[in-house]
Amino acid sequence: MQLIFGLLTAFLAATTAVARKNSGKTPASNDTSLNRPLIHFTPEKGWMNDPNGLFYDNVTDLWHMYYQFNPNDTVWGQPLYWGHATSKNLTTWTHENIAIGPDSDDAGVFSGSIVIDYNNTSNFFNSSINPGQRVVAFYTYNTAESQTQYVAYSLDGGYTFTKYSGNPVLNLNSTQFRDPKVFWHDETEKWIMVLALSQEYKVQIYSSENLKEWELQSNFSHHGILGYQYECPGLSKIPIVKSSDSSLNSSNSTSPDYKWVMFLSINPGAPQGGSFTQYFIGDFDGKNFTADDHQTRFLDFGKDYYAFQAFDNTPNNDVLGVAWASNWEYGGFVPTSPWRSSMSLIRNFTLQEYHPNGEATELNLFSQPVIDHDVLNANHTIHKGNLTIGSGKNVTFDFHNSATGLVELNVTFKVNTSSIRPHDFVDLSFYLRGASDPHEYLRLGYENTAPAFFLDRGNSKVNFVSSNPFYTDKTSVNFLPYSTELNTYKIYAIADRNILEVYLNDGLAVSTNTFFFTEGNHIGSIDVIAGIDGVYELVDFEVKQLSVKQ
Amino acid sequence: MQLIFGLLTAFLAATTAVARKNSGKTPASNDTSLNRPLIHFTPEKGWMNDPNGLFYDNVTDLWHMYYQFNPNDTVWGQPLYWGHATSKNLTTWTHENIAIGPDSDDAGVFSGSIVIDYNNTSNFFNSSINPGQRVVAFYTYNTAESQTQYVAYSLDGGYTFTKYSGNPVLNLNSTQFRDPKVFWHDETEKWIMVLALSQEYKVQIYSSENLKEWELQSNFSHHGILGYQYECPGLSKIPIVKSSDSSLNSSNSTSPDYKWVMFLSINPGAPQGGSFTQYFIGDFDGKNFTADDHQTRFLDFGKDYYAFQAFDNTPNNDVLGVAWASNWEYGGFVPTSPWRSSMSLIRNFTLQEYHPNGEATELNLFSQPVIDHDVLNANHTIHKGNLTIGSGKNVTFDFHNSATGLVELNVTFKVNTSSIRPHDFVDLSFYLRGASDPHEYLRLGYENTAPAFFLDRGNSKVNFVSSNPFYTDKTSVNFLPYSTELNTYKIYAIADRNILEVYLNDGLAVSTNTFFFTEGNHIGSIDVIAGIDGVYELVDFEVKQLSVKQ
Repeated sequence: MQLIFGLLTAFLAATTAVARKNSGKTPASNDTSLNRPLIHFTPEKGWMNDPNGLFYDNVTDLWHMYYQFNPNDTVWGQPLYWGHATSKNLTTWTHENIAIGPDSDDAGVFSGSIVIDYNNTSNFFNSSINPGQRVVAFYTYNTAESQTQYVAYSLDGGYTFTKYSGNPVLNLNSTQFRDPKVFWHDETEKWIMVLALSQEYKVQIYSSENLKEWELQSNFSHHGILGYQYECPGLSKIPIVKSSDSSLNSSNSTSPDYKWVMFLSINPGAPQGGSFTQYFIGDFDGKNFTADDHQTRFLDFGKDYYAFQAFDNTPNNDVLGVAWASNWEYGGFVPTSPWRSSMSLIRNFTLQEYHPNGEATELNLFSQPVIDHDVLNANHTIHKGNLTIGSGKNVTFDFHNSATGLVELNVTFKVNTSSIRPHDFVDLSFYLRGASDPHEYLRLGYENTAPAFFLDRGNSKVNFVSSNPFYTDKTSVNFLPYSTELNTYKIYAIADRNILEVYLNDGLAVSTNTFFFTEGNHIGSIDVIAGIDGVYELVDFEVKQLSVKQ
Repeated sequence: MQLIFGLLTAFLAATTAVARKNSGKTPASNDTSLNRPLIHFTPEKGWMNDPNGLFYDNVTDLWHMYYQFNPNDTVWGQPLYWGHATSKNLTTWTHENIAIGPDSDDAGVFSGSIVIDYNNTSNFFNSSINPGQRVVAFYTYNTAESQTQYVAYSLDGGYTFTKYSGNPVLNLNSTQFRDPKVFWHDETEKWIMVLALSQEYKVQIYSSENLKEWELQSNFSHHGILGYQYECPGLSKIPIVKSSDSSLNSSNSTSPDYKWVMFLSINPGAPQGGSFTQYFIGDFDGKNFTADDHQTRFLDFGKDYYAFQAFDNTPNNDVLGVAWASNWEYGGFVPTSPWRSSMSLIRNFTLQEYHPNGEATELNLFSQPVIDHDVLNANHTIHKGNLTIGSGKNVTFDFHNSATGLVELNVTFKVNTSSIRPHDFVDLSFYLRGASDPHEYLRLGYENTAPAFFLDRGNSKVNFVSSNPFYTDKTSVNFLPYSTELNTYKIYAIADRNILEVYLNDGLAVSTNTFFFTEGNHIGSIDVIAGIDGVYELVDFEVKQLSVKQ
């Protein structure tokens, strides 16, 4: 730990200089330091990527999140550590000391996971350690020679770790073997580890009785989009929630109430560019994961959602997870300092049936953001209903006198298609404008010809936004009615200083994207404009301007 | 045909008015009419989408292309026809009369294909028709009530068609059943039809002995990205070409010399937004297509490549095909008049093994553009070798005095990574600038951190480009060395007035994207700039400015 603190001290001194060196492609001054998100986790200083070791401690009622951390610079580099943060509410986080570090400066403690070893199957613990705090971590130890799997355990509930003397517990003499995610499989009463043989496009599935000796069970290989390599696999048992849409519940009352979902990240090679997370729905018997079909599904349709991981040991076995809210194509160049990258919000995942078109019924992940509004102030709330939006009327919701940069938007709108003519561009656009400079704005909304949800994050005076050729401005997502009968659509969006998460139709599809306005130019107003008259009605429209309670 | 010509006459008169009505989102004047591509096929007037009925007539040595055509407007609408064009060289095309039309104005002759019925299995022909010109067309007849499959035959080599009296030949009482692609299967000596039960996510495979009676063999279902619906399936037997890379040919000399490839289009629901074409590699026994694995592969990584179809009856059974070079998200709003949309260039497809990373070997489609340079003039050629590119030196290749808008770029570059530091943005950028206004430009190139090829088409003064929220500016593609040993990369790009096709590493990956500059502002110069010094060398660099011989 001497090494770590020495480096951190040096880094504190060097921070400004480092930020100013940023290749000339980011602003010369660290002018966006005030745009740090309020409820999306960011490291205090330095570089962060994948979330690691996520678990819930039910003894102290505390959530733990670790993360890939380079405290010495605002780009990725070794020595690489597990940074650490805790939360009581999954909304605001407390920075903790670095949890695990490498043995040398040219090595890295790469991504991994944590489980609670209640029954002390590992024999790492004695009776003095509360069964609910028997914390065992798995990570990839990265050196120039190899990637091997290490185990470490904590005797203080996850703050400090002791490395197992028998490490590595898995070694295939590979330099591309990483990201162990471990969980307890009730049905076979064994521990399961999934991890990636990245460049062979294999998710390997191992089982163990003691968390130290692992036996290969199967390979899940060549599924989905391969890209350059597989990273950060995960496997979760996810409940199937019955829909409120009665047309979806009539078919089969004996259907199972859960399915297994394999999560799998790819970088580079995402169709949108760079990195992304896909998933597969199927069954898992303790040995093999068998996908139900040959579909490739997207966990998020934005550009900034990678390396998803689910929490271990959650209350009610809820499937809660988080992703790194950036993209390897440009994550090392985004204009923030003295830190780079945030995590996504925590999401709660369920499986639900839905109708992707007029004829099919499919199972899909639905996700809901986990936000504890008890720790937030609602400084400003606007609520309207049954508001007709036209091309001439520029409906403006203005709260720029109190701009905090944290804005929730909750919209149900209705489309009357009867008056649409062939050449019409039929958009309903929400312009989320900066309070001090309204020429910086996000435009998001729906267009009926495509038909799709769209987001344009390109209207900014920050040089990085226009000059970085990977920072795609416009993203879009296939968007169908929430209620076909009423022809209504639902959008929930939360903007948090420099990141926007959009949940369509109660989380059927999500799009997570960073955005960058000039320092301090927080969202202060929302203009609502339709391309043509007589088409759009805001059935329900609520905007909340939020801040974190002190 | 009376109806058609009446409508066409009315359309000729109404063209300007129609163009000016374009919803206020496109320029009010038809100011881009001169930006019509030179060697990408466009309809003279009106709306075009999918290519249809592609075949080669070996009697007259003529290539036939049909297409979804609305001659009455510059947006999609019924009555919908098969437009028709022919080519001697697959590079320039002659407009022919409309080939097939619907029986009523509220119906459409939807997408389909053509085969040569040499042996008169259909009994549509007598001995007066040369076996090589026994042209049989299949299409979907679309009405408000249903989509059914129709057959028509031509006694004049594909210019006019007679509808079969027994139509429809396939009717499932579905409104979502379309796009028959028929071919002769040598091994079972039967005709095969693949078509989409679009909203059930099924490619149906039928067989027939007489082109009239069709028997269901199997369904290929729930593969790849589903999106809203499946469209325009195709199935081709594609040769496996041995690579010049010796590391790829050692393994298995008894491997087959071909594979079957299933092409499948999706709209909407593409990860890049809107419409795209995916494919699957596998085997076909006359009944079932069985994919080799569960991969989802992209036929093109750009935003403008949809509804791909392969030609029938090609010399040497070469697999040549073409796609609609637009996207349903914005195709009805692009700023051209009095026509909308072009086809892609014709491509020749082979299968080749390659190394997607340091450990894997995969089979992939490689595509090469088919361009007959004998029908083109090279007005201006620049050829350089061994040119070091730095951040300070602004290498410019200037030919703007003769700008035609048709430019070929052929680059091999080498990357010296030894001097790259962590914060460097290490791009090699080619700025293809307008001759009359250099502030309109395409930026394309490679960046070594991502690492990826990038294209930015957003630097334009045309209002549509910035205001249409679906017209994504920046696209990128995973890009690895062509030669790992030499660390060299290959880019072939062809810009043709308002469309750019980029072929990476001899066609391993292709990105097709439209772009729009102000009228007449054709590409006139290329600036080459690197982000930092000492990294990039142009091993070989050739630019050709082309025009079509009169």
